[in-house]
Amino acid sequence: MSSFTKKDFLQDVVQHIDIKAHNVVSLVDDMGKTAFQARNLARAAKIYDMMLNDKDCAVILTLAGSLISAGLKQVIIDLIEHNMVDAIVSTGANIVDQDFFEALGFKHYIGTPFIDDAILRDLHIDRIYDTYIDEDDLRICDDTVAEIANTLEPRAYSSREFIVEMGRYLEEHGKDKNSIVYTCYKKGVPIFVPAFSDCSAGFGLVHHQWHKPDAHVAIDSAKDFRELTRIKIENDTTGILMVGGGVPKNFTQDIVVAAEVLGYEDATMHKYAIQITVADERDGGLSGSTLKEASSWGKVDTALEQMIFSEATIAFPLIAGYGYHKKGWEGRVARDFNAMLSQSQELDVK
Amino acid sequence: MSSFTKKDFLQDVVQHIDIKAHNVVSLVDDMGKTAFQARNLARAAKIYDMMLNDKDCAVILTLAGSLISAGLKQVIIDLIEHNMVDAIVSTGANIVDQDFFEALGFKHYIGTPFIDDAILRDLHIDRIYDTYIDEDDLRICDDTVAEIANTLEPRAYSSREFIVEMGRYLEEHGKDKNSIVYTCYKKGVPIFVPAFSDCSAGFGLVHHQWHKPDAHVAIDSAKDFRELTRIKIENDTTGILMVGGGVPKNFTQDIVVAAEVLGYEDATMHKYAIQITVADERDGGLSGSTLKEASSWGKVDTALEQMIFSEATIAFPLIAGYGYHKKGWEGRVARDFNAMLSQSQELDVK
Amino acid sequence: MSSFTKKDFLQDVVQHIDIKAHNVVSLVDDMGKTAFQARNLARAAKIYDMMLNDKDCAVILTLAGSLISAGLKQVIIDLIEHNMVDAIVSTGANIVDQDFFEALGFKHYIGTPFIDDAILRDLHIDRIYDTYIDEDDLRICDDTVAEIANTLEPRAYSSREFIVEMGRYLEEHGKDKNSIVYTCYKKGVPIFVPAFSDCSAGFGLVHHQWHKPDAHVAIDSAKDFRELTRIKIENDTTGILMVGGGVPKNFTQDIVVAAEVLGYEDATMHKYAIQITVADERDGGLSGSTLKEASSWGKVDTALEQMIFSEATIAFPLIAGYGYHKKGWEGRVARDFNAMLSQSQELDVK
Amino acid sequence: MSSFTKKDFLQDVVQHIDIKAHNVVSLVDDMGKTAFQARNLARAAKIYDMMLNDKDCAVILTLAGSLISAGLKQVIIDLIEHNMVDAIVSTGANIVDQDFFEALGFKHYIGTPFIDDAILRDLHIDRIYDTYIDEDDLRICDDTVAEIANTLEPRAYSSREFIVEMGRYLEEHGKDKNSIVYTCYKKGVPIFVPAFSDCSAGFGLVHHQWHKPDAHVAIDSAKDFRELTRIKIENDTTGILMVGGGVPKNFTQDIVVAAEVLGYEDATMHKYAIQITVADERDGGLSGSTLKEASSWGKVDTALEQMIFSEATIAFPLIAGYGYHKKGWEGRVARDFNAMLSQSQELDVK
Repeated sequence: MSSFTKKDFLQDVVQHIDIKAHNVVSLVDDMGKTAFQARNLARAAKIYDMMLNDKDCAVILTLAGSLISAGLKQVIIDLIEHNMVDAIVSTGANIVDQDFFEALGFKHYIGTPFIDDAILRDLHIDRIYDTYIDEDDLRICDDTVAEIANTLEPRAYSSREFIVEMGRYLEEHGKDKNSIVYTCYKKGVPIFVPAFSDCSAGFGLVHHQWHKPDAHVAIDSAKDFRELTRIKIENDTTGILMVGGGVPKNFTQDIVVAAEVLGYEDATMHKYAIQITVADERDGGLSGSTLKEASSWGKVDTALEQMIFSEATIAFPLIAGYGYHKKGWEGRVARDFNAMLSQSQELDVK
Repeated sequence: MSSFTKKDFLQDVVQHIDIKAHNVVSLVDDMGKTAFQARNLARAAKIYDMMLNDKDCAVILTLAGSLISAGLKQVIIDLIEHNMVDAIVSTGANIVDQDFFEALGFKHYIGTPFIDDAILRDLHIDRIYDTYIDEDDLRICDDTVAEIANTLEPRAYSSREFIVEMGRYLEEHGKDKNSIVYTCYKKGVPIFVPAFSDCSAGFGLVHHQWHKPDAHVAIDSAKDFRELTRIKIENDTTGILMVGGGVPKNFTQDIVVAAEVLGYEDATMHKYAIQITVADERDGGLSGSTLKEASSWGKVDTALEQMIFSEATIAFPLIAGYGYHKKGWEGRVARDFNAMLSQSQELDVK
Repeated sequence: MSSFTKKDFLQDVVQHIDIKAHNVVSLVDDMGKTAFQARNLARAAKIYDMMLNDKDCAVILTLAGSLISAGLKQVIIDLIEHNMVDAIVSTGANIVDQDFFEALGFKHYIGTPFIDDAILRDLHIDRIYDTYIDEDDLRICDDTVAEIANTLEPRAYSSREFIVEMGRYLEEHGKDKNSIVYTCYKKGVPIFVPAFSDCSAGFGLVHHQWHKPDAHVAIDSAKDFRELTRIKIENDTTGILMVGGGVPKNFTQDIVVAAEVLGYEDATMHKYAIQITVADERDGGLSGSTLKEASSWGKVDTALEQMIFSEATIAFPLIAGYGYHKKGWEGRVARDFNAMLSQSQELDVK
Repeated sequence: MSSFTKKDFLQDVVQHIDIKAHNVVSLVDDMGKTAFQARNLARAAKIYDMMLNDKDCAVILTLAGSLISAGLKQVIIDLIEHNMVDAIVSTGANIVDQDFFEALGFKHYIGTPFIDDAILRDLHIDRIYDTYIDEDDLRICDDTVAEIANTLEPRAYSSREFIVEMGRYLEEHGKDKNSIVYTCYKKGVPIFVPAFSDCSAGFGLVHHQWHKPDAHVAIDSAKDFRELTRIKIENDTTGILMVGGGVPKNFTQDIVVAAEVLGYEDATMHKYAIQITVADERDGGLSGSTLKEASSWGKVDTALEQMIFSEATIAFPLIAGYGYHKKGWEGRVARDFNAMLSQSQELDVK
């Protein structure tokens, strides 16, 4: 048994980087005249700026990997607040375990990967590479999801609908309003988590269903797909800014095909697409598959696509900051897709 | 417009490797005396063999990446048929777009990544790295899912329940009975796809729901989590064989915590854990996160865990083949978790 | 035969990024409060700043990968000119094929990896990932090396000595004096290329030796090692800034051991060490091996070491720019190790 | 201070895998019908078999990474003994620190990367990822190189010439004749180490030169390049089997250009080329650069080239074993390039 206490490890709080404070436009522009990934990063930043200047373009942000715990929350909030993002598709950890968790007043702590995990285990500290979380805080986050579910009418919800309810909860109970879930709630930006049980929300929902076997909230991932496809149907021009790959990447690319399947045969491919990833294409997996490959599936146009091979904590603030400081967002308005999706959706079955 | 036809590209069929035909035991044993990933591979193979010899151990196989299109279907079928796997957690593509697709009589074709994707796009050929698919065949697969959904009572299903229905469909209509979905159906091995809409099934289900707005099938991912957690609750000793990372990895590791959340505070960590992946841990993402990190979360025991850094088409047949030819499975019986899960599940709420 | 001409491909010149124009200090400081590689990058930048503030510290820069062709030449020149680097150990390509090549008046061009290399082959265009070179220009570079060798007294030279002669050549014939080789020549900063034949210099030297079989210039890599070790012997405190791995990394780490072998048993490990690399440690290769592993060999102290997992075009300007704008170099003086090394070296054989 | 002793860590000896004992032909053939890296591995194995069946083809093996310490020594010896390799280009560590080291009677030990390197440092144990070496043994290896150098006539040698002397030393003093250096010595297979000082040999040679400042052995890397180019000049058809990248890869690819520079303008590109590597092409570095890129430089023909993305301890025995058991080597004879290179070389200056 080690003589450490939890406090020894949970000292320095991860602080979220503020793209507004760093004008990286000239830096990124100069990177564009060099080579390799600096040039790719600059091209991606320019494509993002093009999306923002294309007033018809609905911008979908996809998030995979542990981004919020890694200090990227403020980047995403700034994108939402300045109408630089119209919808979000994410893994559950980012939205529930990390953003909603911080909104409940909890924190992520600076740690190290060079540690004996048995010590952490004993102390109820969970590790994400070089970052620590108080596991007891996380259990409260799980419970809060169960509590929210317990208040809802038993039926099938999309993850988006449930996350709206999480935003509503934060309105009253949130301790840190600087939250992705809360900001999206206020602005009507939908958040989709296609594998919603695969995170803290899963624990809460299992607890909810276990104790209410007869009538309970269900999370219908098909409804998520239907709603996200709706956004494609309503927006001829779409662009995707992908941080990491995984389910959010695939799910978002797929809506072009889904629109076709629903009879919208003139649905256009995503016009703009950029992805930040360290995944390798050589294992044939989706996370590292090229956007050119996606074009064979009819999902992404190849004229304005760019992959950037970089870990996200370095590349994402540079790309987002470039978009912010170029001010292409100034003429954009909030789209409030949540309002659109809440209206009856199946009026126009083809 | 190119002068190619679809037939020019869809010629050579991917053939599934047969581990039964290759006794790799001495090869793998000798690898274990060398270093680096050969030694890791051998240790992983030995841990898998230990799982099989531990008659109390429920073995969960997780699948991410395009494995079936890549010729690994027979490996998985052999594991199922020889009671070497008791439950499967997978991405949707493997189960629906690829295995169910082949069961409908369609094929994957040998291709190349060095191709102009615009030509493929024109010909309705979809590419997965170096493999081709006839997109028109895939649309039939989507439609078949919709057709199955249309026959079902409207309610919330776990993906597992829906996949059982897909197996039942194959019983009557399947053209190639050498199928993971069908073999699992017969043997009662549950298949969970936590992000079930993120694949061909999503297209079918969106179509189904779109045309039946008032009463339709929903896929409840919380129910998936509840059912998979049930397996942990019922089996004190568990081992996980992970091919790739992603949602299947996380979801399966999480059931230890979920059991605790449900009051089973003595739920034990996964005793055995091996993962084949090329993902890097340095981006902090889940796919490449070490199993030691998972131990800080209380999910995986560290005594018998092993990561193997290798692309799966090379490493998985060697590990599975080692397990097969060592015959540790001979004393094992089929667990038929599907039967257990179909019974009333919430009898013992704590 | 394609209808392209060389000119179609050799249009846009790679431009070298200027760290002096971008004050990244606050950006990098803020990265240090986040996680993953952004935090690692910031810690590395701070360690570099510590090296510069430690007036006793001799700073050795190691270069592997195609860095000069990729627009990083000016970064390195700025480090040299501001006494932020006291010695360089590099692969040959950076120094000869790329820097010396540009000093002769030639350029690198912006290209793309998505190109049919057969077309480039026909046009005598050489490709480095996304960058193009006129192969005919490169032949002139080879010939110039042969020409320089032809003027020298036949004996064994260290690569450092030969590169000094290349600097001397540029004094008279250089078309672009903004050159690493030339700047080092003026400032007395030694450049070592331990595998000197493995580049354009090799072609020139083979030509020289082939035509002068009886008496010619030889490049003695043992002399390189002896000279570099001398720098360790004369400088108790050393720090290494490594861009990529390969021979330059290993060679530079090894001088601690070499000093011991020569009887300087109190030779201290490199006190500071940072490495930018995308290489993976899991193949057991040197390029990706951790600096902690190097400490088991007695080469690198672990208190102030940091690996950064990032492609160099993104990370190197940020780290170098941080060091530049923090101005730790202001109190440093040029060490002119070339002068020291040119003096008789073996006076103090132990 | 830990209470461990050296013996606690240096227990289990790494054992070299024997490809002769494992007939992998049908396994590899079946891999060729699947996808991704298994298919690439099979294609590479077939290309290697084609090299062996092409009786005009001189086969050059390049080695980078820690391969001998990792249990691959016997694989390479078997290739040499069965005339499956005609020349070797390697990093120094493989040849001197590892093979020559074992020939002196020392061993590599099975270790773990999950260890506190400070403990190893205290015990004089050097770590290569998961393998341990007794540092005191390594010092004897360094000294032996110095001892050999001390017996030689002072002049410039190619690394090949020096390694021949190492083989000669082993004839009398070797404790383990199952050695690459010794087997090559007997068979006349040249070994080139273009960065010869970058290994244990460097320590020995620095010691030698330091104590004999006036007249000593020099290692002329230009002579290495000249000699290796000679092999290209004398062999119209060449094939390269590359394990890892680095200097050996580049150096060997470059000899086609070097032959042209010497006036042999009809020198043909390497007809066959395969590379096993985990390096990524996206950093623009040479180790991961594609063989297609090399074709733009006129170095490698693209008809019969294949990259395999796999760590070498897994892939190399499979490819080498395939070549061995297909018996394409049966009709081949030993080429004894050492004899050719020892003759006067510059008779035919153009």
